[in-house]
Amino acid sequence: MIKKIKRFVFGKRLPSWEYKHQRLSKKIALAVFSSDSLSSVAYATEEILLVLIAAGAAALAYSLPISLVIIGLLWILITSYRQTIKAYPKGGGAYIVAKDNLGKYASLFAGGALMWAYILTVAVSVAAGVAALTSAFPTLLPYKVILALVALVLITVLNLKGTKESGIIFAIPTYFFIAIFFFMIIVGFIKYFTGQIVPMPMETIPVISGLTLFMLFRAFSSGSAALTGIEAVSDGVPAFKKPESENARKTLLIMAVILTILFFGITFLSLQYNIVPHHDRTVVSVLAQNIFGNNMFFYIVQTFTMLILFLAANTGFADFPRLSFFLAKDKFLPNQFTQLGERLVFTNGILFLTAASAALIIVFKGSVHNLIPLYAVGVFTTFTLSQTGMVKRSFRLKDKGWKKKALINSIGAVMTFIALIVSAITKFVDGAWVIIILILVWVFVFLKIESHYKKLANQLSVSKLKKPLKLKSEKHMMIVLVPSFHKGIIKSLRFAKSFCKDVKAIHVDLSGAQKEKLLFKWKQFKPDIDLIILDSPYRVITEVVMNYIDEIEKKNPGIDVTLVIPEFVPKKFWHHLLHNQTSLRLKTAIHFRKRTSYISIQYHLTE
Amino acid sequence: MIKKIKRFVFGKRLPSWEYKHQRLSKKIALAVFSSDSLSSVAYATEEILLVLIAAGAAALAYSLPISLVIIGLLWILITSYRQTIKAYPKGGGAYIVAKDNLGKYASLFAGGALMWAYILTVAVSVAAGVAALTSAFPTLLPYKVILALVALVLITVLNLKGTKESGIIFAIPTYFFIAIFFFMIIVGFIKYFTGQIVPMPMETIPVISGLTLFMLFRAFSSGSAALTGIEAVSDGVPAFKKPESENARKTLLIMAVILTILFFGITFLSLQYNIVPHHDRTVVSVLAQNIFGNNMFFYIVQTFTMLILFLAANTGFADFPRLSFFLAKDKFLPNQFTQLGERLVFTNGILFLTAASAALIIVFKGSVHNLIPLYAVGVFTTFTLSQTGMVKRSFRLKDKGWKKKALINSIGAVMTFIALIVSAITKFVDGAWVIIILILVWVFVFLKIESHYKKLANQLSVSKLKKPLKLKSEKHMMIVLVPSFHKGIIKSLRFAKSFCKDVKAIHVDLSGAQKEKLLFKWKQFKPDIDLIILDSPYRVITEVVMNYIDEIEKKNPGIDVTLVIPEFVPKKFWHHLLHNQTSLRLKTAIHFRKRTSYISIQYHLTE
Repeated sequence: MIKKIKRFVFGKRLPSWEYKHQRLSKKIALAVFSSDSLSSVAYATEEILLVLIAAGAAALAYSLPISLVIIGLLWILITSYRQTIKAYPKGGGAYIVAKDNLGKYASLFAGGALMWAYILTVAVSVAAGVAALTSAFPTLLPYKVILALVALVLITVLNLKGTKESGIIFAIPTYFFIAIFFFMIIVGFIKYFTGQIVPMPMETIPVISGLTLFMLFRAFSSGSAALTGIEAVSDGVPAFKKPESENARKTLLIMAVILTILFFGITFLSLQYNIVPHHDRTVVSVLAQNIFGNNMFFYIVQTFTMLILFLAANTGFADFPRLSFFLAKDKFLPNQFTQLGERLVFTNGILFLTAASAALIIVFKGSVHNLIPLYAVGVFTTFTLSQTGMVKRSFRLKDKGWKKKALINSIGAVMTFIALIVSAITKFVDGAWVIIILILVWVFVFLKIESHYKKLANQLSVSKLKKPLKLKSEKHMMIVLVPSFHKGIIKSLRFAKSFCKDVKAIHVDLSGAQKEKLLFKWKQFKPDIDLIILDSPYRVITEVVMNYIDEIEKKNPGIDVTLVIPEFVPKKFWHHLLHNQTSLRLKTAIHFRKRTSYISIQYHLTE
Repeated sequence: MIKKIKRFVFGKRLPSWEYKHQRLSKKIALAVFSSDSLSSVAYATEEILLVLIAAGAAALAYSLPISLVIIGLLWILITSYRQTIKAYPKGGGAYIVAKDNLGKYASLFAGGALMWAYILTVAVSVAAGVAALTSAFPTLLPYKVILALVALVLITVLNLKGTKESGIIFAIPTYFFIAIFFFMIIVGFIKYFTGQIVPMPMETIPVISGLTLFMLFRAFSSGSAALTGIEAVSDGVPAFKKPESENARKTLLIMAVILTILFFGITFLSLQYNIVPHHDRTVVSVLAQNIFGNNMFFYIVQTFTMLILFLAANTGFADFPRLSFFLAKDKFLPNQFTQLGERLVFTNGILFLTAASAALIIVFKGSVHNLIPLYAVGVFTTFTLSQTGMVKRSFRLKDKGWKKKALINSIGAVMTFIALIVSAITKFVDGAWVIIILILVWVFVFLKIESHYKKLANQLSVSKLKKPLKLKSEKHMMIVLVPSFHKGIIKSLRFAKSFCKDVKAIHVDLSGAQKEKLLFKWKQFKPDIDLIILDSPYRVITEVVMNYIDEIEKKNPGIDVTLVIPEFVPKKFWHHLLHNQTSLRLKTAIHFRKRTSYISIQYHLTE
């Protein structure tokens, strides 16, 4: 029954040889890995304008050069990540690059930062999608946490169905988003070149401070939100169809082109229309209204902006499980993260991501504004580490054109580092300190887990054992627990007799009620096994049995005692309530004993 | 650590031979078993007056004859219960009497009614105690449910410490209560005989209806609240010191005398003072104020009234666990209720009582008023059944003076039956229907449980087996699960080899990663056991192993397969998170297989 529901929701399970068919074509991969990145154009221009506005309306003009610098940085990063993909065709991303070039600790920082970045991607994008929805339908506002969790569960279920299936479903709205935004920008430019743009009347804006260099840095750092998500492709190379690395590089290039056009277009046109950022309306919606007027197209832009925000979460789902797989393979995360589930996805990674982002949504009450400051620091940390790693790699390998590569990556490293420092400083009190602590927590957890697995491997290592192995049979004793003489006991007695020469039957006497009956039947049936009656003045079974085993082990050094536990299995579940849980207690007690084992022998009741 | 806390709270555990020392002396038993009964004098008079007031102030005078009838009934019941105690010296009460004289179904009704009566005793008395407390300190009102639960837990803990210890602690306030009420009544009578009573001015009370016979019946039925709790002694005979039955009878007599004096005194004096019941003040508190004036004694009466209400719960705790023991011994309740706990009390019965009354308190939001209607029906059902049972017994045995006994019990049966019918009818919509359903639910549960135990006994019965028993050793096979070749496996291989001739090692190949290494080591170490590699296209272990066992069982009819499961036990608890729970899944799967058993062999990690 449960299985049927599972199959219905998630689809039939897939055999391992289907794995290669689960790969993504370039078209679908572009949609899956770019939705996070593309969603950032919905707010990146606005973030720049919001910083500049403090220096008055005239300062807004600086948004154009600043976005050109960001686009420049984007291309440096893209070039760099294309190199990374070539260098690490099995999937790279900051963790692998740092591990290969900067050593263990840098890689763990990159891994920790990336894990949080993906968790935050999911939490922020779901929260942002709900925020867009509730601003259209304010009556839904009290339910925003619930709505966010429902959306999260939906995205989770689709991802559990498989990378490919969720990819196809999520590709459609992503391409619609790209199409409508391209259309808007083309219409905008046509209007610009044909002189049809009617700028909005200049608002008088109070000048809070003069324009400072620091303000420009802050505007740059805030606008760098446009860069979040571009590392997604490099983390996900193994999800591509063959040739993986080739396809991934092409996809990354296409993504960069789209991103550049959208980001530049929106910033440029916003400036032409004199759009000033306001808290009650987004810059993109004002721009769409100016370009299209209040018609259908305006609402389509609005709808797909909302959808792309939700979809950005999917990028997190595409990459996080793979990242946790890499970390688990290197023993920094539990082994369970390496296991492919029924639908050939990393089920445990997906579920962990869902749980963690649900926790963030609940703790931050579904508010994007509270989550954003945590976001940037994580993203820029990974950029900086990955760029630095690539610089070091060039210096190490000194392959063809390494100086040029090193230069590009150095510029990338410096600029993302600036963005990192500026975000960390300007947003420190807003919550950036939290993410710094959280990354350190991950690093600590990684090291703790690694240490456990190392110790485990040492303890279990057979390298010092003699070859070939001699399985010497040592002294064994089996003890059968006999609460009363009934059919369920006989099988246990039979098993014990055939497994072991030295068998004892024991009965713990609680109240004397069972004892006489048992002794009588024992004499009748003569099972040819010694029956030992153990007194229990405190009416406990487990303790008395363990004491008896202690005694035997003391008297017979080197003996292996195995307790035979007869259990009957009731037909109906509620019948369990009518029987005491002695066998469970005995098993738990034996679990903590070094030398003792147990055999569980079931007797199934038929009614 | 947990053990130490347990010992500190509940005291050291007691050996079974201490049981007889846990018996109660008459003095303590009187306090334990009478607190419920005595607490009813705090409200019984008021209940009568509240019914009569509808017929105007003059009708209140009928309270005296009505209470005399109730006192008459009390003595009939006492006489009857004293006979019951003599007849059933191992503890009687309605359940045993009905079982012995009226058959199974009547006894189950009595048992169900008694169980609810005790659960309600606890819930009502705790709620009433809290109500008295919150009327003194109204700021506590919002916390009444929490306060009731805290009081309940406190009483539970004291009862878990042991019958004797809780008895001593609870005896002190009970005797203080008796003393101060006696003092009040004596002072009242002195004032009466010396003509010092100044009646309160007659209030003008609107006459709602004329005095009808039905109203008198209702007043009688409401006043019969004074009778609740008098069956407690008969249920608890085995708790008395030897000679149990003798001591119990004496105690019951003393209780009846005290109850008579208090109930009559309060009713009589209330009438002399023209006390009219009001919703904001209790009759007892008005009476105390009239007798003592507004001095210290008045407050002492108030305080001990509150305490006795709490203490009434203890009577429930003294009797319920023993009743559930009787029912469990007769297989109508789970076997666990027959087990004496560490402190020689029926721990499971106590905990069940706590849980059930806590549930009632929570469902009824800690309100006495909502619980009272449920109460009376249960109590009068048990009285009626127990009286009827005693009548039948007299007719059956026809011993010396049986006619007189039968007459007394018949009067008791009829009168309590009238009280039952009147309460059921007058309080039907208020909640009496709930208790009728709840009693039927218990009866259903009792029968279901009995049926399970009967079927169980049949299935496990060895009566048809040949004697002596021949433990034939049949075909056995052991299968050792080998995830990889490490130290933890070797012990399992060794055990299997020495227990069984036919041993196979199996490895479930999930990803191919472990397989090659394992095959290599198997060749190196040559453990002289066939290693079988099982493919798992869907990356599951349990299913593949079970299919393999199915196959073996099919090929070898009659074979007993035992799976050897090597487990390593991590040093620290959180390490469990770093390992998959395969062994748990395998054990669960085997639990549902009829022929298969498992051996669990632990390997303890040291760091």
